[in-house]
Amino acid sequence: MSPLTLTPSVQTVQSIQLEANGVRLLDQVRLPHEVRYLTITSADEMRHAITTMIVRGAPALGIAGAFGVVLSARANAKAYAQNLPSCMLAVLVDADLLAETRPTAVNLQWAINRMKAVMADFDGETSAELVSMLEKEAQAIFDEDLAMCQAMGRHGRKIIPRGARILTHCNAGALATAGYGTALGVIRAAFEDDNTLQVYATETRPRLQGAKLTVWELQQENIPVTLLTDSMAAWLMKQGLVDVVIVGADRIAANGDTANKIGTYSLALAAKAHEIPFYVVAPSSTIDLSIHSGEEIVIENRHADELVWIHNHNISPEGTPCYNPAFDVTPAELITGVITEHGIQTAQSLS
Amino acid sequence: MSPLTLTPSVQTVQSIQLEANGVRLLDQVRLPHEVRYLTITSADEMRHAITTMIVRGAPALGIAGAFGVVLSARANAKAYAQNLPSCMLAVLVDADLLAETRPTAVNLQWAINRMKAVMADFDGETSAELVSMLEKEAQAIFDEDLAMCQAMGRHGRKIIPRGARILTHCNAGALATAGYGTALGVIRAAFEDDNTLQVYATETRPRLQGAKLTVWELQQENIPVTLLTDSMAAWLMKQGLVDVVIVGADRIAANGDTANKIGTYSLALAAKAHEIPFYVVAPSSTIDLSIHSGEEIVIENRHADELVWIHNHNISPEGTPCYNPAFDVTPAELITGVITEHGIQTAQSLS
Repeated sequence: MSPLTLTPSVQTVQSIQLEANGVRLLDQVRLPHEVRYLTITSADEMRHAITTMIVRGAPALGIAGAFGVVLSARANAKAYAQNLPSCMLAVLVDADLLAETRPTAVNLQWAINRMKAVMADFDGETSAELVSMLEKEAQAIFDEDLAMCQAMGRHGRKIIPRGARILTHCNAGALATAGYGTALGVIRAAFEDDNTLQVYATETRPRLQGAKLTVWELQQENIPVTLLTDSMAAWLMKQGLVDVVIVGADRIAANGDTANKIGTYSLALAAKAHEIPFYVVAPSSTIDLSIHSGEEIVIENRHADELVWIHNHNISPEGTPCYNPAFDVTPAELITGVITEHGIQTAQSLS
Repeated sequence: MSPLTLTPSVQTVQSIQLEANGVRLLDQVRLPHEVRYLTITSADEMRHAITTMIVRGAPALGIAGAFGVVLSARANAKAYAQNLPSCMLAVLVDADLLAETRPTAVNLQWAINRMKAVMADFDGETSAELVSMLEKEAQAIFDEDLAMCQAMGRHGRKIIPRGARILTHCNAGALATAGYGTALGVIRAAFEDDNTLQVYATETRPRLQGAKLTVWELQQENIPVTLLTDSMAAWLMKQGLVDVVIVGADRIAANGDTANKIGTYSLALAAKAHEIPFYVVAPSSTIDLSIHSGEEIVIENRHADELVWIHNHNISPEGTPCYNPAFDVTPAELITGVITEHGIQTAQSLS
């Protein structure tokens, strides 16, 4: 369990959970019209859940990767009950495959590296012991994420003016984390003090995480939310209707350049033009000091189908060529501050 | 007929046409998967076609309004064959109702005012003569639009660099005009000289005119087009993949501020940040010298359903509150030039 006292709202939405018989996932592809949980039992199933975005969001991807390694360890500990080296080798193969499922969010690689470090340091004798150590580490990653999100909420609430109209993008909420959220964690925390806050959620094309997930998640907590298309955000700002922009992050380079869901850069440019504060909220595990700038961040390009097909309907002529990067990079100079579990810093002061 | 020689490409797509038995419309709601024409025979049907966006695009709305007045005149000339004053009164009522269908595009009011001026100046004696005069004026509005679009194409092609990657928004094409297009007219004209041009089309949420109409229209002419979400445009620019942005307009104030499809302002901000030329293409009838600045332009707000329902699928929880302005206003200082049938001017030099 987390070392922190959990506020009641923490438990509202839990999208991922390690259980004795597998990993329980809230199927985020089916939200908001269907709240369906599924239990997956193998690393292969976890890879599929990650690539199809049943589970998504940078912190949640880290947790999913770690839990995937646990699933692999459990299966391989049965297959190789008497052969620890073979068990470890098989788990390492799965760990590397899991790490490759999505390239942009650093949390996935970070969490898998923690799991691999446990294996490297392992001095036990049986596969069963290894499973137990990996379960412990994976659960620690989960618990720490929850605690970090709450800490980000405590720090971040200070930058939210009373009665603020807050614009957010994609879903950086409980659904994207162990259960409290990064950007939405800050909003949750601020809303505890001030229920006059309002949220504007961009729908976040192409996958509509804002419309499907953020609206749903905020409605679970009765936080007022208004939906708009991504294209309307700059005009909303021009109308004087946005006091602060808060987003999550998938990877932050040493110089503060921040990869996040496609569309973030456009919002940051618009916020700058209107002199609206623009904050990034992410656990320190999202900061990748191994890369100097955003130019080194690998941007995942996804299939055109994701853009043109909306729920069994093709919005454009068959076979239309598409540009479909899943993320963009916002330069540090457009970011007012980065909120981590340690506090609020300028994007330029991270390294 | 138009006084100009028509190039072959002019006839490719014709979305609106005055015929003896009514007005033939290409149903733009059903594109691109179904190319269906319908013939409407009353001013009421025309109002419905305008509000439901079976016909859309500022210049086409002007033509539609004028043709709607003709439909009213034809019907009322039958009803009041021997009573010219009653006929005229009934037509004027329909003209005013047509003018109110959509508030932002000035071309609609402009065209209806031309039709009303014909009625005011009418010195004939029979309702049948009135019909004939109104048909002549409406067809002139259509023919002039086609000629103006071609003139805009001739002027505008000069600002397109060889091999340019052109970003456009919404549909300012043949579908939105008498048949050649404003922004897409410039692209058509430039493509005649240089078939290495490429177009990037934003999908244009919420109604997806880019994905549904612009992609389809350009594909009819084999002009290479790549689709992206509105949220990707700034990132596309950051990647150095856009040489020029070209859009249409719904109303241009005397100071050059330009109302156009929602999302245009966001693109203009991004173009400015990347020092990419940003051009507006519109006939002079779109310039409204009666208003000083964009602050006076009435922005149409449309129903939330338009945003959350995509082809029978609701993308968000039931009853989600939405912000849904149909247009935004781009300040003159973000506009590199305005291309009309008279040539290219700075936005600041219109009045």
